[in-house]
Amino acid sequence: MKKKDDEMNHRSACAVSMALDAIGDKWSLLILRDLMFTNKRSYCELQSSDEKIATNILAARLQSLEATGLIRKAEDPANGRRTLYYLTEKGIDLLPVIIELKRWAEKHNTQTNSCADTLKLNDKNRKEVLTAFKKKLKSLHCTK
Amino acid sequence: MKKKDDEMNHRSACAVSMALDAIGDKWSLLILRDLMFTNKRSYCELQSSDEKIATNILAARLQSLEATGLIRKAEDPANGRRTLYYLTEKGIDLLPVIIELKRWAEKHNTQTNSCADTLKLNDKNRKEVLTAFKKKLKSLHCTK
Repeated sequence: MKKKDDEMNHRSACAVSMALDAIGDKWSLLILRDLMFTNKRSYCELQSSDEKIATNILAARLQSLEATGLIRKAEDPANGRRTLYYLTEKGIDLLPVIIELKRWAEKHNTQTNSCADTLKLNDKNRKEVLTAFKKKLKSLHCTK
Repeated sequence: MKKKDDEMNHRSACAVSMALDAIGDKWSLLILRDLMFTNKRSYCELQSSDEKIATNILAARLQSLEATGLIRKAEDPANGRRTLYYLTEKGIDLLPVIIELKRWAEKHNTQTNSCADTLKLNDKNRKEVLTAFKKKLKSLHCTK
């Protein structure tokens, strides 16, 4: 039986540390970014991103993201031999973290682009834009 | 001469990916958390946190955080042989990322505590609370 996140070994009870136990590496949030902001759902599609993730790292990260309940696997209805990956609600809830990373990098690096550019977010409309986008993600990812 | 962050090798030009090039590991954000929310400034103090970071990892992370301009070193005025670590403005700007990681973990883990609990933040007062706390951090860290 899989351990729930709460039963996993955490380095400390600090909330920030617990979050980094789940997604504190160079790749996990990029996989979640692709599931949030692109139509990539299969292993091959996720491997085709600009960052060129190595196949063994992608496999390991997908496994750990599933173990911590951030994504779920499903059979492709159009091709039973193909597995698709979807965000869970817990994964979708990381949207604000990804948005804040993006805003930080845009402020401090001159040459960036981002697949998250579809979200026109500022301090005033922040809550509404995030709520609407989370709702959209839930409709795309959280229906069986 | 040190390379500026913009001249470093990035996996792609995506803003999210660039941010993770700088702080995408299990430890960097915990060091920044301690500098933001505690009075820890020396190597020994930073090593004493609950997560028990290994000394070689702490040394490597402090070096890379300095190289990417997120922290700066200074001599302890009370003890010339001791080095203290301070946040730069670029490091302070990661406050919203840490706050969103904290909120996410608090929602999805039952047993958390956090040294960031001093910030009573909700969707309405978010901007004001973050602005005030950043100002406080600048006064603590960014004076020579």
